[in-house]
Amino acid sequence: MAKKMNAFYAQSGGVTAVINASACGVIETARANKDKIGKVYAGANGIIGALTEELIDTSKETKKTIAGLRHTPSGAFGSCRYKLKGLEESRREYERLIEVFKAHNIGYFFYNGGGDSADTCHKISQLSKKMGFPIQAIHVPKTVDNDLPITDNCPGFGSVAKYIAISTREASFDVASMAATSTKVFVLEVMGRHAGWIAAAGALAADEDNDIPVVILFPEVEFNRKKFMAKVQEKYEKYGYCTVVVSEGVHYKDGKFLAETGLKDAFGHSQLGGAAPVVANMIQEDLGLKYHWAVADYLQRASRHIASKNDVDQAYAMGKAAVELAIKGENAVMPTVVRTSDKPYRWKIGSAPLSKVANVEKMMPKGFISRDGYGITPKCRAYLEPLIKGEDYPPYKNGMPQYVTIKKVMVPKKLDTNFEV
Amino acid sequence: MAKKMNAFYAQSGGVTAVINASACGVIETARANKDKIGKVYAGANGIIGALTEELIDTSKETKKTIAGLRHTPSGAFGSCRYKLKGLEESRREYERLIEVFKAHNIGYFFYNGGGDSADTCHKISQLSKKMGFPIQAIHVPKTVDNDLPITDNCPGFGSVAKYIAISTREASFDVASMAATSTKVFVLEVMGRHAGWIAAAGALAADEDNDIPVVILFPEVEFNRKKFMAKVQEKYEKYGYCTVVVSEGVHYKDGKFLAETGLKDAFGHSQLGGAAPVVANMIQEDLGLKYHWAVADYLQRASRHIASKNDVDQAYAMGKAAVELAIKGENAVMPTVVRTSDKPYRWKIGSAPLSKVANVEKMMPKGFISRDGYGITPKCRAYLEPLIKGEDYPPYKNGMPQYVTIKKVMVPKKLDTNFEV
Repeated sequence: MAKKMNAFYAQSGGVTAVINASACGVIETARANKDKIGKVYAGANGIIGALTEELIDTSKETKKTIAGLRHTPSGAFGSCRYKLKGLEESRREYERLIEVFKAHNIGYFFYNGGGDSADTCHKISQLSKKMGFPIQAIHVPKTVDNDLPITDNCPGFGSVAKYIAISTREASFDVASMAATSTKVFVLEVMGRHAGWIAAAGALAADEDNDIPVVILFPEVEFNRKKFMAKVQEKYEKYGYCTVVVSEGVHYKDGKFLAETGLKDAFGHSQLGGAAPVVANMIQEDLGLKYHWAVADYLQRASRHIASKNDVDQAYAMGKAAVELAIKGENAVMPTVVRTSDKPYRWKIGSAPLSKVANVEKMMPKGFISRDGYGITPKCRAYLEPLIKGEDYPPYKNGMPQYVTIKKVMVPKKLDTNFEV
Repeated sequence: MAKKMNAFYAQSGGVTAVINASACGVIETARANKDKIGKVYAGANGIIGALTEELIDTSKETKKTIAGLRHTPSGAFGSCRYKLKGLEESRREYERLIEVFKAHNIGYFFYNGGGDSADTCHKISQLSKKMGFPIQAIHVPKTVDNDLPITDNCPGFGSVAKYIAISTREASFDVASMAATSTKVFVLEVMGRHAGWIAAAGALAADEDNDIPVVILFPEVEFNRKKFMAKVQEKYEKYGYCTVVVSEGVHYKDGKFLAETGLKDAFGHSQLGGAAPVVANMIQEDLGLKYHWAVADYLQRASRHIASKNDVDQAYAMGKAAVELAIKGENAVMPTVVRTSDKPYRWKIGSAPLSKVANVEKMMPKGFISRDGYGITPKCRAYLEPLIKGEDYPPYKNGMPQYVTIKKVMVPKKLDTNFEV
C-alpha cells in the first residue's frame, strides 16, 4: 500500500477477562509502528460500530489508559452478538463495511473473537478484494469456550479455567468442613454449552497435594441419572462429601438440557433454571444428601482479579502478533499459540489461514475424559495445567481493582448515509 | 490455676475465608506461652468433637502447617451446626463437655463462631464454675453475617464483602460491554438471610472513578415489585444496563422469601430455587430485558484467594487476643474490634462480656440504607470501605493456591463412655 492506512479493531461475542489485553497488544503495537499504520479506530459495540460508522478514536486515549486495558476485564469498546452470514445473505452489511472502511482510509481489519468472527474476517478479506478496496483482515483469537481449531488454546479460556479450578478447590474445602452435620454435596455450574473445557478445569481443584472428590458432568457425556448418583454416592462414602462441577450444556440422550426443568410457575409458565439447582435437587431426592449450589455465570469470565498470567501474556501476544502479521503483508490469517513443550511449558506464536479456522469447532479430544465419564485423564491435566499458571494481579486502590474505562472519543462521521442494524 | 492447663479450640457454624486465621492466632499464641498454657486440642467437627471426645492434638502439626492456616479458607478442624440450648434442656451436653474437659485437663475453652456459640461459650463458663471445674471460656468472633454486637465488625465479613464488591464490579464491566445487543441486566445473589451487610458490599462496585448502576435488594426492605422495576428501568435508561445484587433473604411483606418460588415439578413437589433466577425472570416479564444471573453461595465465603488483608489481620488478632485474655485470667469475654478512625482506618482490640454478646443480633443501622431502599448511604460506605482494604494473597504453586490440610492426629481417649450426638 502506497498510502499509510488506518486500522479498525473490534471485539466480538462474549467478552473475557483478557480480551482487552489483546486490544492493548493491537493498539500498543500499532502505536509503535506509526510509520506503517495510521490510527487505530475501534468499533463502538463491535462490528456494529463499523456498520453505523461509530468509530472510537483510540489515539485520543492516554498511554496509561491503553496500558491499563491489559488488566481490565470485559470489552472496553463494547462487544456485540451480531453474526454476518454468507456474502449473498449479508451482502448489504459487507458492502457497508467496505464503504465505511474506504471513507476512513482503513486498510487493516483486526477482529477479536471466536469462530463466527473468524468467518466474518475471512469474508471481509475476500469481498474487499473483489470490490477493489482490498483490506488486510486479521483475526485475533478469543473465546472462553476454547473451541478454535489449530491454535493450542484460546486467550480467555485459561483465566476462566483458573477461576473455576480455584473456586472448586475453595468450595470443596468449605463443604469438607461442614459435612459432619450439614452440607455434604456442593454443585457448581460452569459455562460451556457444547464443549466441556471449562468443566474439565474443575478437576484441577484436586492434585497430588489435595485429595478432593470432584465429579464432573460434561456436555460430551449423556446424562445418566442412575450412573451419576452411583458416582456421587461412591465419593460421599469415601470422603464424607462430594463436589460436582456441572456444565450448563449437560443434556439427556435426547438432547434436552438439564436446565430445562419442566418447572411451571403459578401461571403455568415454563421456568428455565440453571443446571446446578436441578442436579442438586436430584441428589437430595435420590441420595438424601444436603446440598448447596452456585452458578458462576459472568463471574467466571470477568474474573480478571485472578486471571492466569499465561493467559494474559498470550492474549497480549495475539494482539501484538496480529499487527505484526499485518505489517508483514499477511491477510486472512489468525495468530495462534503453538505449544512446544508441556513441562516446562513453552509456547511460540504461529499463524493459521482463516479458511482453515472459520466454521471449525474444536471439541475435547476423546482421550481427555476419563473412562467413567466423570473426570479428566492425565493427558487432559497435562494440557490444562500450564494454561492456568501464574498470577497477574491488577493494581488495587482502597481494596478494589483499578480497571480502566476509555473516554470513547468518536471519529467524526464522513458518510451522509445511515445504516440500520 | 496452679497446674498448667490445656486449651480446647472449636470452630462453629458456617465457615469463612479467615476462620483458620483465627485458629492460627490461637495456636501460635498458645505455643508462644507454653509456660502458661499446655497443649491446644481442637474439636473434630467443632463442639461435637468435645462431646464425643474426638480431640485433635494440634501439637502434632508442624509450625509451617499452623502458619499455613492463616491463608487457608474453610474450617481446618471441621465445623458443625450443633446448637446447645439452655442449661436445663441441654444439661446432658454441658455435663459431658465438663467431663471431657476434666479428663483432658482442659482449663481454657476458645469457641470460634457467631451469636449461638457466644451463648454456648457463656453457659460453659457459668456451668463449669457451678460444677466445681471452672473453665475460662473465651469467644472468638467469626461470622460472614457481621451480626455480632459491640465489635465494630466480625472477622469473615470483610473478605466476603471484598469478593462481592469485586465480583459486582467485574460482572458490571462485562454486562456493560454486552448490553448493546445482548444482556442488559445482571443479577447476583449473595448471602445474608436476616441482615443486608453482604448485599450492601455490592454497592462498593461503584465509586468516584466507576459510575456503575447497582440496585440492591436488602432483606431489611420489603420487596415491592413495581417500585423495584421502576428503579431498574430508571438505571437501564440512564446507563443502558443495570446490575442487581439480591440478598438471599429478600422477602415480601408477609415474610415469604422470593426464593420460595411456588414452582412445582412434574410430580407436584415444590422446588426451592434461588432468589436470583426469580428476580431475573421477573425483570424479563415486566421490562422485557435480557438477563444473566449468578448465585455466589459458598464461593463468596470460601474465596480466600481475594481475602481482605484487614480481615485476615483482624481474624488472626482476635485469636491471639483470645489467648492473651485467657492468660490475663479473663473469663466469659470476647475480644472485639474497636474502630478509632475511618480515614485513615485505625482499629484496636477491645473486649466485651459474653452476657452482652449472646443472643443479640446487630442489624444494619437505619441510616445505612439509602432513602429509596436500593442503595447505601455515604455513612455505610465509610463503614464498609476499610473492611475490604488490602490484599493478602495466598502462596501459589502451578497456578493454584496452596491451602494446608492438617494431619488430624487424635488425642487418645481417656473416658470409657460414649456420647451420642
